Formats: sequence, structure tokens, C-alpha cells
Amino acid sequence: MYYANKNLVTLNRIFDQNKREGYLRLDLNENPAGLPQDFIDEVLSSVTPEMVSQYPETLEFTELLASKLGTDVSHLSLVNGSSEGIRNIIEAFTSPGGAIVGVSPSYAMFEVYSKMYGRSFVPVSYSDDLKMPIENIVAKLNSNVQLLVLVNPNNPMGNVYEDHEMERLLGAAEEREITVLVDEAYHYFCPATSIDYALSHEHVFVTRTFSKLFSLAGCRLGYVAGWPEGIELVQKLNTPHNVNAFALLFARAIIEKEGMLEQMIAEQLSGKAYLHDHLRKYGYETVGSEGNFLFIKPFGDTAVLVDRMKAQKGILVKAYGGIGSLGSCLRVTTGPEKCMKRFMQALIDLDYRQSAQGAL
Amino acid sequence: MYYANKNLVTLNRIFDQNKREGYLRLDLNENPAGLPQDFIDEVLSSVTPEMVSQYPETLEFTELLASKLGTDVSHLSLVNGSSEGIRNIIEAFTSPGGAIVGVSPSYAMFEVYSKMYGRSFVPVSYSDDLKMPIENIVAKLNSNVQLLVLVNPNNPMGNVYEDHEMERLLGAAEEREITVLVDEAYHYFCPATSIDYALSHEHVFVTRTFSKLFSLAGCRLGYVAGWPEGIELVQKLNTPHNVNAFALLFARAIIEKEGMLEQMIAEQLSGKAYLHDHLRKYGYETVGSEGNFLFIKPFGDTAVLVDRMKAQKGILVKAYGGIGSLGSCLRVTTGPEKCMKRFMQALIDLDYRQSAQGAL
Repeated sequence: MYYANKNLVTLNRIFDQNKREGYLRLDLNENPAGLPQDFIDEVLSSVTPEMVSQYPETLEFTELLASKLGTDVSHLSLVNGSSEGIRNIIEAFTSPGGAIVGVSPSYAMFEVYSKMYGRSFVPVSYSDDLKMPIENIVAKLNSNVQLLVLVNPNNPMGNVYEDHEMERLLGAAEEREITVLVDEAYHYFCPATSIDYALSHEHVFVTRTFSKLFSLAGCRLGYVAGWPEGIELVQKLNTPHNVNAFALLFARAIIEKEGMLEQMIAEQLSGKAYLHDHLRKYGYETVGSEGNFLFIKPFGDTAVLVDRMKAQKGILVKAYGGIGSLGSCLRVTTGPEKCMKRFMQALIDLDYRQSAQGAL
Repeated sequence: MYYANKNLVTLNRIFDQNKREGYLRLDLNENPAGLPQDFIDEVLSSVTPEMVSQYPETLEFTELLASKLGTDVSHLSLVNGSSEGIRNIIEAFTSPGGAIVGVSPSYAMFEVYSKMYGRSFVPVSYSDDLKMPIENIVAKLNSNVQLLVLVNPNNPMGNVYEDHEMERLLGAAEEREITVLVDEAYHYFCPATSIDYALSHEHVFVTRTFSKLFSLAGCRLGYVAGWPEGIELVQKLNTPHNVNAFALLFARAIIEKEGMLEQMIAEQLSGKAYLHDHLRKYGYETVGSEGNFLFIKPFGDTAVLVDRMKAQKGILVKAYGGIGSLGSCLRVTTGPEKCMKRFMQALIDLDYRQSAQGAL
């Protein structure tokens, strides 16, 4: 009799990456401006027929990354985007029926993978004032729990776990022998990190991506950092050649170009500060400023504004309902100032000028 | 208590893609010459910051591929190399403890994934004269079997299932309600295909890769073709952005460039014919000619020859033991004539001239 995996039959997946070309994309937390064209051209000028036709060499890049992180290759596994690393960790360190605790809302794939593999996802909700009291997380860590997943700073809420909070969480998990995954997709926009902890303790992983600050979402690259025996299991789940040569080429070029990372961070932070200041000036309420995105409470209807932003201004933003006391909001990816200026002007035209404030 | 997936703890994985740069690579069935540099440069001249920084758009390419295959996008799922598609099919259409039947030797990942997911892999051996009588496969298709996996032409044996043989196998599987996966990694080197069958029947999949003839192993791209409900489950297992923009860009450029595919096929076949003819001329026994590789029985010791090929000639080839009556052999990837000439000269130097024949 034909068999089909029942977890998949009932699983809902959303693939939302198509038909976005040509828009100013502030909906998926990519870098909306991208890398400089001359940098791209310079990097691509080194591409050879061998590089394209050969299964990708990963060792040299992993060694470079390890040296930048002050560790060695046994602590790292390269993945085809951090979402692949998250899946590997769930597959390796949880079992069917086991519980995975995570805050809600957060990165949607934690719940998707939990359903995909028949794990039970236990959500911890934000309070109405959009705080995440960490004792609410600790309270869920019982003996059924195999994995605690956290994004720091969290997406889409934009809050950060301070060092002492993360220590409390990691300590509580260790006491109960629960593996912890800290996804640092939004590292660099905010300096908080658990990477030293992951590199020096067992059963703590950090995942990072090159899709956000590094601006390589089109290339696909991320990594898992952790203790060697844990990384070995994560790596065993990878397909034989899971990361591609172009992702490795670009990531290496950015890491090796002196001052480039610092310049990218500064450009992103100044764009975010520009948007934040202007929103405040026009009287907009915002929350969640630690990643490369902000929640903005529009004066008018959020869903209508999202549609008009796309149709009239060529700008993609995302609507979120139920953001605590703010209710329905826009989540807007931040980026370099030129992108933020274009968004701010569109917001003034389509929302502010239509409101009581704008009409004064 | 910490949990670790026991299937992984005991699983053996080999990652053999590193430290191969600079060699003539005839060990992993890539195209050893690669695409022309001017074609690569032309393709890369269209790369924009948006393409690099945006999550990859997949729809347009999938539509192009579907139109070339005479189908629509509901019959296709793009994967990060066909090995990802194979894994998805095993995850979706088999259950823990279920049996997967496949010939042995074949693509190693069938057995690896079977162990990874706790399935039972049932091998069907070649006969001593290196034939695969298909009734030996049919005989294994009992009620525990959920999936039959075949590579056509098979790797590493290089035999092809003729149309009437494949019909018999597909019919036998259908009678017993067993899903079938036909991996066509080596399609184009040999015209046999089950793709029309997969596009018109339920529970039959074909996987294909852009790593072999298309010469894009460094880019990572493959696809699964099948019936829409089956493809939907395969697609649900993909990470949110599993294929990258560079792979899509190159695959599209090759498909759209008039005559390019035909020229690549002709170049590969003429290189293989060159090697075959010269091996015969020097008295070498070979088997398995339908993929982009040949088994060659050296006059001297295989392991020593592999080492000397690498150290003295800068050529990577692979040793296989137990190739039926031939015993230990080289598996040599075929490619354009210039690569085959270099290999043939090395073989004459290191093996033929050392042998009784060469000394005459």
C-alpha cells in the first residue's frame, strides 16, 4: 500500500519569495539596497569554469570563518541558509512527540519544522505590553522538553535578550538537560550574542545567516556553531554538497575586505536611525528596534496601506495583526538611508497626509 | 534528559569534495572542463545587487523548465541538488521501519538516507557478469516495501534499463502499490528516460540534476518531477529558500541558449568515444559506458595507480573494488576530448608501459 507521511499531508507551507522583482523590498528583512555593484563585479571577475563545474570546496571557507570566530572547524557546520541548520538541530536533538519550547511570534519555521517532524511546539506568548518575561519561558521547561529555540534579537518582535537574561535561560535549560538553539539571524544589527557560550558549552547551538547584514539572501549561506559532537550530528544531516560555490565566494570576499563589515553595519544602523527619527517626528508609534526591521502603527488601515504601498509606490511591506496593545501594524525592513527616505515619503503620502495629524 | 537521534549517532557520512582544486578531476562525475569562460562571463554580467541580496525568485525558472518538459509547474519541485530531492521523497513516501529496495552498488545516498531515517534498505546485487536481471529486483518487491529507487543509467555501474525493462519494473511496483523514484542524474549522456511516465502517472518520480551534463555542480540545482499531489509533499519538505539565484541564472542561460545543450552532449559523447577507442586499442577491459564515466581494469595495482595518478599527473580518479569478474577497477569520469587525452597519456605512462603489454 502506498505510504504518505501524514505530518506532511496536513502541513501548511508558505513560499512567498516570488513576483517581488522591481519592488523596493521591505517585507522579508533582506538588505533592500544590496551590495555595491562594483564590489559584486570585482568578486565575480574571479569566477572560473572549474568553480562553476566542481562540487563546492568548503574547507578553506570554514577555516576562515573559524579563525574569525576564534575557534576551529570542528565547531562549525555550513548550511544552505540558517533555516537548514535549524531543521538539522530539530531532527538531531528532538524525537517524535518531544516538546520544543519557543516564544510566539518568532521565526515561523520553528513551528513548521515541529509539525513536519511530529514534534510538539509549546509557544510562550508576549505580554500585552510586548515584553517577554523570561520566567515565562523558564516555566515551560519541563521534562518533556527536548529543545528551547530563541531568536536573539527576536523576529518579528525586535526585542533582545540581555546577557543576564540569556544566562538565566541557558542555565535553566542546562539544569533540565534541554538543548538550546539561539538563532542569531539579526546579529550585527545588535551586538548581543551567545556564540562564545555555544563554542564553550555542550548542548547550546547558535545559528547565523549571511542573508541579512551580509546581503547574500540570493546566495544561500548560514552556519551552525556548537560543540564538536553536536556539530558532527548536525553535519551528518546535510546533503552531500549543501552549500554552493557562489555563496562561499561572496561571504569570503566580504569577510576578507578590510572595514567592509563595519561599514555595512554603520550604513544599516544610520538608515534605521533615520527612519526611527522621522517616524517619531510624524508621531508614529513603533516597537522592536534591535533587528533590521521596525513595527509601525499606521494612522489608517494597515491592510489598505500595504496594498497601496505596493500598487502606488512599488514598495513591499508586511502586515502583522495582534501586536499587543498596538494591534495591527506594518513590519518594515530597515536599510540604507536612501531606501528609508523613499519609504518615509510614501508613508507620509499614503498614511500621514490622510490622517487627522496630517490634515492639520 | 538530553536527546540525540540514534540513527545519526551510528551513521557514517563521507564528505569528499575538499582539496581537489587544481587537479584534473575525474573522480566525482563532474564535467572536468566546465563551461566556456566567455559564456560564464556573459552570464555573470547580468548580476545585480538585487539578485544577490534578494531571496531567490523561483517561479519564472520553474515555468521555463516546465515548458521545456511539456508540463506545468505543479509537476516540478526545484531542489538544492537532486540529492535533496531524493531525501525529500524518502522522508515523504516511506516510514520508519519501511523497506526501500535499490540495486547495489548505486548512488550511495540511498543507503545513507535509509539509515538516517531508520528505513530498511534492501539491496539487489549485480550478477558476476555485471548484469542486473530485472526479475531479481521484482522478486524483492514485497508488502513491506514502500519505495523502489533506481538510477538510470546507474552509477557507478553504467548500465541502462531499456524501456521494456523499466516498464516491467514500474508495472510491478504499481501492482504492489510501491512508489518509484528513478534518478536520471546521467540523462543526456544516454537518451533513456522515464520522465513522461512520471509526468502522467501517480507514485512515480524522476529526479534530475544540473551538476552533470549542465556542468553546474558548484551551483547546486536539481529537480523532482512527478504528479501534483506527490510534488506538493516533496515541496513541503524544502527549506524556505532552498535553491539559489546563481544556479537558476546559469541553468536558465544554458536552456535558453540555442544549440548549447546539443553541443555539450556532442562534446561529452565524442570525448567518451575517444577514451573508449583508445582504451580498446591498448587492450584495456572496460564496463559501463552509458553515463559520463567508465570502469577501467588496469594492468597493475589499482590503488597504487590511483595514488600515482594524483601525485605524478595531477589527476583524480576513483578506485572501486568488487566489480564482478573484473575485480578492482578505476572509475574514470569522461569529458571533453582534451581531458580524455591527458588522462589516456597518464594511463599509458603509469600503467600500460609498466605492464607486459607495454614492455613488448
